[in-house]
Amino acid sequence: MARPVTLFTGQWADLPLEQLASMCAGWGFDGLELACWGDHFEVDRALADDGYCNAKRELLERNGLGCWAIGAHLVGQAVCDRIDDRHRAILPPEVWGDGDPDGVHQRAAERMKDTARAAARFGIPQVNGFTGSPVWHLLYSFPPNDFGEIERSYEQVADAWGPILDVFDEEGVRFGLEVHPTEIAYDFVTTRRLLDALDNRPTFGINLDPSHFAHQFLDTAQFALDFPDRIYHVHVKDSKKRLDGRRSILGSHLNFGEEARGWDFVSPGHGDVDFEQLFRALNRIGYNGPLSIEWEDSGMDREYGAQDALAFVRRTDFAQSAVAFDAAMQR
Amino acid sequence: MARPVTLFTGQWADLPLEQLASMCAGWGFDGLELACWGDHFEVDRALADDGYCNAKRELLERNGLGCWAIGAHLVGQAVCDRIDDRHRAILPPEVWGDGDPDGVHQRAAERMKDTARAAARFGIPQVNGFTGSPVWHLLYSFPPNDFGEIERSYEQVADAWGPILDVFDEEGVRFGLEVHPTEIAYDFVTTRRLLDALDNRPTFGINLDPSHFAHQFLDTAQFALDFPDRIYHVHVKDSKKRLDGRRSILGSHLNFGEEARGWDFVSPGHGDVDFEQLFRALNRIGYNGPLSIEWEDSGMDREYGAQDALAFVRRTDFAQSAVAFDAAMQR
Amino acid sequence: MARPVTLFTGQWADLPLEQLASMCAGWGFDGLELACWGDHFEVDRALADDGYCNAKRELLERNGLGCWAIGAHLVGQAVCDRIDDRHRAILPPEVWGDGDPDGVHQRAAERMKDTARAAARFGIPQVNGFTGSPVWHLLYSFPPNDFGEIERSYEQVADAWGPILDVFDEEGVRFGLEVHPTEIAYDFVTTRRLLDALDNRPTFGINLDPSHFAHQFLDTAQFALDFPDRIYHVHVKDSKKRLDGRRSILGSHLNFGEEARGWDFVSPGHGDVDFEQLFRALNRIGYNGPLSIEWEDSGMDREYGAQDALAFVRRTDFAQSAVAFDAAMQR
Amino acid sequence: MARPVTLFTGQWADLPLEQLASMCAGWGFDGLELACWGDHFEVDRALADDGYCNAKRELLERNGLGCWAIGAHLVGQAVCDRIDDRHRAILPPEVWGDGDPDGVHQRAAERMKDTARAAARFGIPQVNGFTGSPVWHLLYSFPPNDFGEIERSYEQVADAWGPILDVFDEEGVRFGLEVHPTEIAYDFVTTRRLLDALDNRPTFGINLDPSHFAHQFLDTAQFALDFPDRIYHVHVKDSKKRLDGRRSILGSHLNFGEEARGWDFVSPGHGDVDFEQLFRALNRIGYNGPLSIEWEDSGMDREYGAQDALAFVRRTDFAQSAVAFDAAMQR
Amino acid sequence: MARPVTLFTGQWADLPLEQLASMCAGWGFDGLELACWGDHFEVDRALADDGYCNAKRELLERNGLGCWAIGAHLVGQAVCDRIDDRHRAILPPEVWGDGDPDGVHQRAAERMKDTARAAARFGIPQVNGFTGSPVWHLLYSFPPNDFGEIERSYEQVADAWGPILDVFDEEGVRFGLEVHPTEIAYDFVTTRRLLDALDNRPTFGINLDPSHFAHQFLDTAQFALDFPDRIYHVHVKDSKKRLDGRRSILGSHLNFGEEARGWDFVSPGHGDVDFEQLFRALNRIGYNGPLSIEWEDSGMDREYGAQDALAFVRRTDFAQSAVAFDAAMQR
Amino acid sequence: MARPVTLFTGQWADLPLEQLASMCAGWGFDGLELACWGDHFEVDRALADDGYCNAKRELLERNGLGCWAIGAHLVGQAVCDRIDDRHRAILPPEVWGDGDPDGVHQRAAERMKDTARAAARFGIPQVNGFTGSPVWHLLYSFPPNDFGEIERSYEQVADAWGPILDVFDEEGVRFGLEVHPTEIAYDFVTTRRLLDALDNRPTFGINLDPSHFAHQFLDTAQFALDFPDRIYHVHVKDSKKRLDGRRSILGSHLNFGEEARGWDFVSPGHGDVDFEQLFRALNRIGYNGPLSIEWEDSGMDREYGAQDALAFVRRTDFAQSAVAFDAAMQR
Repeated sequence: MARPVTLFTGQWADLPLEQLASMCAGWGFDGLELACWGDHFEVDRALADDGYCNAKRELLERNGLGCWAIGAHLVGQAVCDRIDDRHRAILPPEVWGDGDPDGVHQRAAERMKDTARAAARFGIPQVNGFTGSPVWHLLYSFPPNDFGEIERSYEQVADAWGPILDVFDEEGVRFGLEVHPTEIAYDFVTTRRLLDALDNRPTFGINLDPSHFAHQFLDTAQFALDFPDRIYHVHVKDSKKRLDGRRSILGSHLNFGEEARGWDFVSPGHGDVDFEQLFRALNRIGYNGPLSIEWEDSGMDREYGAQDALAFVRRTDFAQSAVAFDAAMQR
Repeated sequence: MARPVTLFTGQWADLPLEQLASMCAGWGFDGLELACWGDHFEVDRALADDGYCNAKRELLERNGLGCWAIGAHLVGQAVCDRIDDRHRAILPPEVWGDGDPDGVHQRAAERMKDTARAAARFGIPQVNGFTGSPVWHLLYSFPPNDFGEIERSYEQVADAWGPILDVFDEEGVRFGLEVHPTEIAYDFVTTRRLLDALDNRPTFGINLDPSHFAHQFLDTAQFALDFPDRIYHVHVKDSKKRLDGRRSILGSHLNFGEEARGWDFVSPGHGDVDFEQLFRALNRIGYNGPLSIEWEDSGMDREYGAQDALAFVRRTDFAQSAVAFDAAMQR
Repeated sequence: MARPVTLFTGQWADLPLEQLASMCAGWGFDGLELACWGDHFEVDRALADDGYCNAKRELLERNGLGCWAIGAHLVGQAVCDRIDDRHRAILPPEVWGDGDPDGVHQRAAERMKDTARAAARFGIPQVNGFTGSPVWHLLYSFPPNDFGEIERSYEQVADAWGPILDVFDEEGVRFGLEVHPTEIAYDFVTTRRLLDALDNRPTFGINLDPSHFAHQFLDTAQFALDFPDRIYHVHVKDSKKRLDGRRSILGSHLNFGEEARGWDFVSPGHGDVDFEQLFRALNRIGYNGPLSIEWEDSGMDREYGAQDALAFVRRTDFAQSAVAFDAAMQR
Repeated sequence: MARPVTLFTGQWADLPLEQLASMCAGWGFDGLELACWGDHFEVDRALADDGYCNAKRELLERNGLGCWAIGAHLVGQAVCDRIDDRHRAILPPEVWGDGDPDGVHQRAAERMKDTARAAARFGIPQVNGFTGSPVWHLLYSFPPNDFGEIERSYEQVADAWGPILDVFDEEGVRFGLEVHPTEIAYDFVTTRRLLDALDNRPTFGINLDPSHFAHQFLDTAQFALDFPDRIYHVHVKDSKKRLDGRRSILGSHLNFGEEARGWDFVSPGHGDVDFEQLFRALNRIGYNGPLSIEWEDSGMDREYGAQDALAFVRRTDFAQSAVAFDAAMQR
Repeated sequence: MARPVTLFTGQWADLPLEQLASMCAGWGFDGLELACWGDHFEVDRALADDGYCNAKRELLERNGLGCWAIGAHLVGQAVCDRIDDRHRAILPPEVWGDGDPDGVHQRAAERMKDTARAAARFGIPQVNGFTGSPVWHLLYSFPPNDFGEIERSYEQVADAWGPILDVFDEEGVRFGLEVHPTEIAYDFVTTRRLLDALDNRPTFGINLDPSHFAHQFLDTAQFALDFPDRIYHVHVKDSKKRLDGRRSILGSHLNFGEEARGWDFVSPGHGDVDFEQLFRALNRIGYNGPLSIEWEDSGMDREYGAQDALAFVRRTDFAQSAVAFDAAMQR
Repeated sequence: MARPVTLFTGQWADLPLEQLASMCAGWGFDGLELACWGDHFEVDRALADDGYCNAKRELLERNGLGCWAIGAHLVGQAVCDRIDDRHRAILPPEVWGDGDPDGVHQRAAERMKDTARAAARFGIPQVNGFTGSPVWHLLYSFPPNDFGEIERSYEQVADAWGPILDVFDEEGVRFGLEVHPTEIAYDFVTTRRLLDALDNRPTFGINLDPSHFAHQFLDTAQFALDFPDRIYHVHVKDSKKRLDGRRSILGSHLNFGEEARGWDFVSPGHGDVDFEQLFRALNRIGYNGPLSIEWEDSGMDREYGAQDALAFVRRTDFAQSAVAFDAAMQR
């Protein structure tokens, strides 16, 4: 085992961090990737309250837990998304405000800058999250898309995130986009385009989550090899296809967990992701950061699952070889 | 060969019908499914001009061509879609008007009623088309959908189409939704829900097009068997997946024909659709209507392709058995 | 782990129950599904001897073992089978009698009624078993079957079992047919027909055993979803196909364990059954009864195998989720 | 095209041979494999009526058709089968008689001897057919088989067929068993055993029909290579599996042509058989006899199908190479 | 059909060109790719005899045949191979000389220069062929390779071919390496390395032959897309894997055509190559040169096969689209 | 667990045996298969020094380790190989001598005789190793092979090894060829030929290593069943194919561990080998010798891997059944 294993706390924000940290420590996690919602890591309080970060740090240390990254997915989503009522449910009230899209975009961008500042104050060099997408609704080109609009959207995202990333640079913090449907970048092609639109600035990398690749029939291990210097953080999450000629890979507008869906999220090791190949690819590119379990499985008890996932990662993420072979055969 | 083979003219609307009909006759088609755009079948003129339908009919007869259905996809799409600039490009100016969504919806609905009236006048009992969808942009549930909204959308579509279908009933014409991404119904689950929302009224059936099923990993032959009394018309169109771990099944926001897409439309018989199984299923359910080739393949010459497709259908759509087997073995 | 794990004792009837119970307790089983042969559960003695059931119960309790069902496969088989010499080997002498088919049928039926009575006396609400089939030999229709005969056979079985099931009803005991080749119901189609012939009376349900489905290329998880209210008991047994172009799926009239067979039974987790999907399906339909390991693998030591199978079930049958996801993301 | 293509007339016995021969000649067949039922080839009349064979021969020659084999499947089946009512439907009344099994067996055996005599008189050196099986009903070993009984059945068949084959030897005619479910030999293993039980006498070979292999997951080309000196005749017939997790490979006691079956017969080239590999294997073993189309497809018109099948064979059965490669590169 | 279809004459050098040309013209070929052995195209005579090229050209024109390339595989092989007795069989005596490796290398290199000169004189801008490889015998690294030696071998080949390619440049002729086992470049990796070692000079490109890719599990269409500006010529040749657990992909040191091999060459369209995808890829990269059938199939008659292959290419190499789709739908 | 599990020390020869034995004992191995290089088992010293073997034996016993075989791969390779510089690196200097091929062959053969003598002295009845191959470089027949030369090579190997095997016979020691690319026998076909060339003498059997079969698409379990009386020793080693259309199964002349290779060695249980089927096959043929882990995985830490492999074998190599099934069901 070479890499620390953490739990991303986003799906556990109904629990106070105090309680969650104690549970995770007991289960044997090395640390937590704190979500910027619930009471796990509150950006506004971190900046406003001088003792906030120290208190969090103490809480973690008391439980023997490290922290290598925080997750700001929800606010990040609002920076470039077409805003609608669903965003109200995931945004802090002061970011949502009156819900006017331009205002939401602007306030979300400011909050992301603050997130970089708060991370720096907390001593964490990595913020993971989403960017949103102005063109997700154009996924299928009918009525026929104006593909110039698609092209421009990469620039639009680059423009919106440029000033945010400037603050990240100032603070010495990096951003890791979780490549994911509903984001501007959700696969190989769109990631390449976005990185190009951002002039491949090192501030902006990837939080690699294989669960979003598997149902697209994408090879996450290959992704790591194709973008070796942009893998800044890794999520361990899994998904499973259940295609039988009646279930659509597009999901049928059904919620996760519905039986008739063509794919769903499952606990790591229970799905389609080939984690051993992914971890071997991470070895090749020299990734030494955390493996952060983002746990989601509508058919499994959450606490059982977190432990099952941890055990799975521990036995799958073996150490690399340090020597070349056949060497011992030669004199 | 038991069923007439027609060409859907929608992708040929750059050609005058006169010219297209002559070409298709020469190639051996049995008839045309006229698109309601270009000069192929103009709804407004059909209603305004007493001789219009007769002239069209004569043009077809002169070429020895039949007509069993017309296609009103573009205007239909505008009835329930979230209207944006892309609709301007596909709508007649008088339906687009000032582009205000409510107005567009209303004018598109009226035009669909007129389409039923024009079809009746033309003596055609079948109009194929799209319905649009108020929730297509909610395909992937992040930010998390309000699934009540999804539920309500089926009702919303039923409400919008109810008055239109009343006119269809009055005129003795049936509507065939082409089950298709970006429509409210695009797979087994959503079609079942939509038909239920419409109280399974017989006016509303399906224009079955397998090219939209194959890339969803859906079995079109099974669809015909599951909805045997709602298959009102059939398109012969094909698509092909080219998944290699780097190409996404979601299409990467690339236009059709781009090399890096995970799937694309191809000429019938060159893709993933198992047409023989589909045709056998159509035999089982007693479908005797046209097989209408909707031709689209960005890598093949259009005129070569139409002929190639016709030959493919001719050799694949064999006649059913009329007798039971092993009977001849028994005395 | 939500469901008790038991061992079906049918393949261990060469051992006295005393000895077997002690072994199973030591291995960690939760209970036993007692076979109605050997000295495990003797129907005649249970009815004749007032202390029999109490003594059995005490034996189990002494070993900390529960009992949720008994297995009466062998006698049940004789109720509707075409009787031949093979039945002599599996029937108690008093049921076999002189071997005259009508008499065997009648005595087997009576013994099944007694089995219900004995189960009730023992306090067990579930009897599993076989029904036999009058038409198994007509599996392949050559010489061509009279399919009217097939149709009538479902009625014939319903007629023979009606009076038996009446006694089950009186005693408050349910019957679980193990869907299985050589039974009247061995797959989706035949099960549906049999249940219909029995007017879907609740007395008669299914003891679901996936090992009989896998070599037929049937999906046991889907079966559970298709017959959700009839899954009364579940066997954990596995089978494996070894098809290489020379081995027939039909078995070549070779005994189990022969190298040249196209499929064989194997210890659970070593074969083709996808138990995780099966257990997830059982979660969906709310099945909370036992998972009863029926152990059979001609290539593995039996005692090693029982423990291996138990460990397999323990690590595969995880608890369900109690909460919906993404909820924690919303405020 | 190196081998003659014939039609097996068994499924066309409702038509007088006069009519069928004329149709087949028109379609381009090289000859017919005459069934010994209907008026196609009547064994009793061929022996009783001196002019019968000449008249048949003339009829064929008038139509330019050859004949290389006759098919005596129905009577052959009765030689070793467990006789029941189904045999009445397929046997001539004088062979059925009173239906007493021993008598039927005996009369069927005599008729098979007569068939050899009639074939000789007709100048045909090959009779194809079935043998029946005393143990087909023991296909699945529950109640557990006495495998000694299985072993003995091969001897039993050898004993019953010995005297028949003696007559074949006397007449200079060979018998070709169509390896087929419900026969004693239906796959690699059982064929090997039967040939051994018959001391591999050259009189007894195989009429190779791939349609009975494909649904057993057997490789017919490999079968030809494994039994190279016993392939006496070849049927061209196809079958197709339609396994989706709900359809059983065992057929669900449904008649051919039912939608819910797991496999069915289809017109050659429309199913799972790899005919090119089979024909290449026939080239390797030097088989130069007829390719006899046995046509059966419940979803296709029979006359269309016969022509479709003929065209398929013509384009698939290419001639072998006569030279070694790369030779031309060397000086 | 956009591209000329030619026959590579290498496997027909036992026939005089006069005879072969007449046959090919009759079959409908557009031209020939002349082999530099037999009497097809003799480099020494072409340079020595002023009328030779004109006479050849006339012979072709008389048969209505074009020529776009010549094939100099055999001599090319000797430029960088480890020379052994097998080369004697494929080389002209004057190139073989005394068989001393250094001398053979030198004379082969001179002959290749002459081949460029002769091609120029003949008016043909393309010479296809092999390069040989100094390290083919090191394919499997045991005893462990010195991988520095592998590295150096690319330079060694570049050094040997540099002066040859200089003459090609002078003559305005290009060389197309047929990527192939036993050559220095036989797959994606080795081709990239070789082209780099040659500084990607435009003189040196590829004669793309998919039959050498398929048995390596390589995707020839992808190869065309990865090396779009180096595809100078295309062979149409096919191969087929027959892997069953007993046949090795490495070929078992058996000659082509042996039954026990794991793969073999087959007539185009009868094997594993997906020619439609290859031709579509050629369309994408704008390749307009010949499709040259190199015919080799040890199980098919050569003359039948050449015609079968030509028909296959004619029906598979359809013309590209000239227009973008959905355009006709938009106003 | 029925068979001892050993570690082959060949890849650990950089460690003194003292140290390695202590590590292996701690990890729980049952014994070691000593390599004849490093200081593990020195053939010359074993013969020259009377106390050598006893000292080795004591060292093993001190660690509670057994020894059932020694490995003499490197010297064996030189007996029949075409000698080049790579052999210098793997041979003892006194065997290499001046590197003249004939001398190397002779000295290697003598050393193999000594190896048998040393094994006998050490009390070990089994020597594993390689034979080398005079024709490995002719793997792909271009320039076309003289297949007579291939035929003769089997005799040549038989001739070279005959005198060596005579000494093995004298000493009561058996030789186990590790069937492997670069050896004369590397698959089913070539092994059969070699054994035949050696008149199937019992001295010469096989050290079965599945890692060399899997990338050839060969079924190792079937190999054991095909050569049941020649499996003298078994290696547990694994390999994995990573074929994606760009990576060649032939390895691209890349070293093991390179990312672009089409296959590579991996730790047992992490690759393509189906060890359960292999172990079941070993049960069938009654193999009771050691399972010797030969560990090689360029992506895993060696010490972690050895333990991981041992645990894998322990849980996969279960004991056979001693009883027949269904017996318990019968009275």
